[in-house]
Amino acid sequence: MTNENIEKNTATDSTACVLLIGNEILSGKTQDANLQYLGTELSRLGVKLAEARVLPDDADVIVATVNECRARYTYVFTTGGIGPTHDDITAKCIATAFGRELILDQRAVECLKRGSFELNEARLKMARLPEGSTLIENPRSNAPGFCVENVYVLAGIPSIARAMFETLADEFDSGPPIYSRNVDVFMREGDIAGPLEIIADEFPDIEIGSYPFARDGRFGANLVVRGTDAGRLDLALNKIVETMTRLGDDSSVGEPD
Amino acid sequence: MTNENIEKNTATDSTACVLLIGNEILSGKTQDANLQYLGTELSRLGVKLAEARVLPDDADVIVATVNECRARYTYVFTTGGIGPTHDDITAKCIATAFGRELILDQRAVECLKRGSFELNEARLKMARLPEGSTLIENPRSNAPGFCVENVYVLAGIPSIARAMFETLADEFDSGPPIYSRNVDVFMREGDIAGPLEIIADEFPDIEIGSYPFARDGRFGANLVVRGTDAGRLDLALNKIVETMTRLGDDSSVGEPD
Repeated sequence: MTNENIEKNTATDSTACVLLIGNEILSGKTQDANLQYLGTELSRLGVKLAEARVLPDDADVIVATVNECRARYTYVFTTGGIGPTHDDITAKCIATAFGRELILDQRAVECLKRGSFELNEARLKMARLPEGSTLIENPRSNAPGFCVENVYVLAGIPSIARAMFETLADEFDSGPPIYSRNVDVFMREGDIAGPLEIIADEFPDIEIGSYPFARDGRFGANLVVRGTDAGRLDLALNKIVETMTRLGDDSSVGEPD
Repeated sequence: MTNENIEKNTATDSTACVLLIGNEILSGKTQDANLQYLGTELSRLGVKLAEARVLPDDADVIVATVNECRARYTYVFTTGGIGPTHDDITAKCIATAFGRELILDQRAVECLKRGSFELNEARLKMARLPEGSTLIENPRSNAPGFCVENVYVLAGIPSIARAMFETLADEFDSGPPIYSRNVDVFMREGDIAGPLEIIADEFPDIEIGSYPFARDGRFGANLVVRGTDAGRLDLALNKIVETMTRLGDDSSVGEPD
């Protein structure tokens, strides 16, 4: 009936912002597949994903947003716009944001040479990076990502974005572990909101979230508790399960997410 | 080999911003399913989706972002946070953003009374709206969305968000129709980027996008042309197909998205 996860403390001081770059996401052409991955992994690493933005392929917007977010958050991650075509403008925008030159990075050229494809002008564009960048290894293909100060620039293709992110896992300041557990109840939120708020007031140290769903024609809610004190978490979850059962929940027949 | 779509002009002056509200999206627990729908429908209606943001259940962040975005864009759409539980704070935040009182809206109470469920204090919370709101009909369940000036507040559950949005279709200033077509080529972007840029330079009035993909172990790119002049669009697409075929593309065996 309940699910348990251990993750790092998202109440740490380390915060992150994800910038998904690409007209295709805003036009509805493409379903983003990077945010959920990054949100999950950052939670695991103890970094709180505080905000995400989806931006068009517009240099002014990208530059302004990168500068706003790199000042506000501990880490900024971008996905998309680092390929070889004319609409790939992320590297140039990052250089502009930091006031750095865009240079042909010889380390990146070496990465590209590992590929079996002709190193033409278009592919060399993927080696033009802001001066002083740190490369982010690309284990899936050859063009690297890069990092300037606290801004990490990843590919847009999900499999490559993930492979790049995995190489970074040791980079970040992480917090103490917290626990997260959740339970599905097949009751309407309107019927559980009052009792749930009483429990939330009783456990101010624990984040209690209610996420409604419609599944197989039934309405329900996924109730999530998160906190650093495993004992208190047990108490809160038991209280929720006991209360919901008393209210008539039959979620024992439901499957966890 | 090619796909054709007719949509309204996204080069109109009407712009939109979508705010997806909810910790569950940022923590990776939930995959957002509203952005792609809204992006597609807004394009169809001739409204350019200029930006989207994913925000936590944090009143200060929500209030500040709503005020920033409602000043910057023609329309703002929010999803999430209008249910009956303690973590549903969107209505209160919108009231704060506009400096309006949160009142028990009798029209919304009437909507809720249509339901077969007890109208308890928690459900009545869904009728507490900023003073002077316009209701947005909810054809799927009973709690309405609402609109204050240019800010449209929708539910988070995708089926309900969609049903609410559909009731709004006539609300927006739309632009002249534009056409969009696309073709999949099973070639690496690095091999087509140069020739594609030449075509893009030749057709400055047409937006040409290249979106790489990895599918069934093969790399390729979806090439999209968008513009208001159907004749010019034909020319550009023909030029792209002819050029890619000459370069060795075998995409005639590929299926469109």
